[in-house]
Amino acid sequence: MKIGIVGGTGEIGEGMAMRLSVHHNVAIGSRDEAKASISSECTVSSLQKRGLCARCCGVCNQEAVDFGDVVILAIPYRHVVPTLSSLAGFEEKTVVSPVNPLAKAAHFYFDPPAEGSAALLIKSLLPKSARVVTAFNNIAANRWQAFDEELDYSVAVCGDDDAAKETVMALVNGVSKLRAYDAGPLAVSSIVESITPLLLNVARYNKMKDVGIRFV
Amino acid sequence: MKIGIVGGTGEIGEGMAMRLSVHHNVAIGSRDEAKASISSECTVSSLQKRGLCARCCGVCNQEAVDFGDVVILAIPYRHVVPTLSSLAGFEEKTVVSPVNPLAKAAHFYFDPPAEGSAALLIKSLLPKSARVVTAFNNIAANRWQAFDEELDYSVAVCGDDDAAKETVMALVNGVSKLRAYDAGPLAVSSIVESITPLLLNVARYNKMKDVGIRFV
Repeated sequence: MKIGIVGGTGEIGEGMAMRLSVHHNVAIGSRDEAKASISSECTVSSLQKRGLCARCCGVCNQEAVDFGDVVILAIPYRHVVPTLSSLAGFEEKTVVSPVNPLAKAAHFYFDPPAEGSAALLIKSLLPKSARVVTAFNNIAANRWQAFDEELDYSVAVCGDDDAAKETVMALVNGVSKLRAYDAGPLAVSSIVESITPLLLNVARYNKMKDVGIRFV
Repeated sequence: MKIGIVGGTGEIGEGMAMRLSVHHNVAIGSRDEAKASISSECTVSSLQKRGLCARCCGVCNQEAVDFGDVVILAIPYRHVVPTLSSLAGFEEKTVVSPVNPLAKAAHFYFDPPAEGSAALLIKSLLPKSARVVTAFNNIAANRWQAFDEELDYSVAVCGDDDAAKETVMALVNGVSKLRAYDAGPLAVSSIVESITPLLLNVARYNKMKDVGIRFV
């Protein structure tokens, strides 16, 4: 599968790129192409040390979009509008949103846009033929980066296009011990996104780290 | 601990009563006191068959409130307003809300009141000295009732009163293999409640039954 990661040098994108480039062709995108190149080299050498072959390259975000059959938006919520307004070419792409609109006051809370969720906002900003799928929302960046440890979590996947959802579920199931669950249409994304501030609260109030979820 | 279960003969209340009355003094409340008495007798005999001693009695909902230091509102969301407007005496009580405002169209969705969550609605309906705590929201009724099987789930607990929250967390941790997690103030309850329609969607779209969650 050809995967483009917009924000591939960011906190979550970096670990994602490393784990995905073992099995897929990955274009690591960044606003700063030089940074993406360095990140790609680091990924290659990290995997080489483990006897694995990385298939990745560092590019600008637009090239990551152009490259991917699946495009992952590994960007913070506050970057969604400026990033998407600077990019084009999403027609017919499967676009994965792991984005969570959250804020922190005395505790972490879900702070969605008027559309109801980051996923629905993203859908409103992309051409109609783009197929937005929510996935990977509840996995901490640190867990992505800890490459020698398994990711043993459940991943709720939401989307309105069945084929795109199936593609993303297969992608999820190919990463470590992640297990994809069809959580229904894109409208359900608000719940999935809101679990992240809950997990941050659980971590904070129970002195835990990088809490994730499993459906059992 | 003295526990009153409002709605103790309902889908969730029944299994809850059985599991809690092994360790606590439980008043099983119902609008129909005769139904509560039968339910109490069934609980006693079910536990007796297993060599266990149930400490429970069947009463009307008001007596369940009066009896409990902890009062569990094991009622469907649509009954919250009529039930609470028919009851009194919640002053100084720890009131547990496992209530989830949800609805079903093509899929299950979270359908909260203007207050933002069932827990905040309940708080608004009770005297100020009542200490509302969210718990037990994401466990299916069938699981409560399957007494010979462990309940091996995480339970997010929210509340604004630390002592009440600690009491409820201890109560949770005493049931089967449940593990209580402090999820912060009562304002976080909306997220916890919304997980239930997510779990119903996950069950539905993945042909599973009685899905629960674990924080890992």
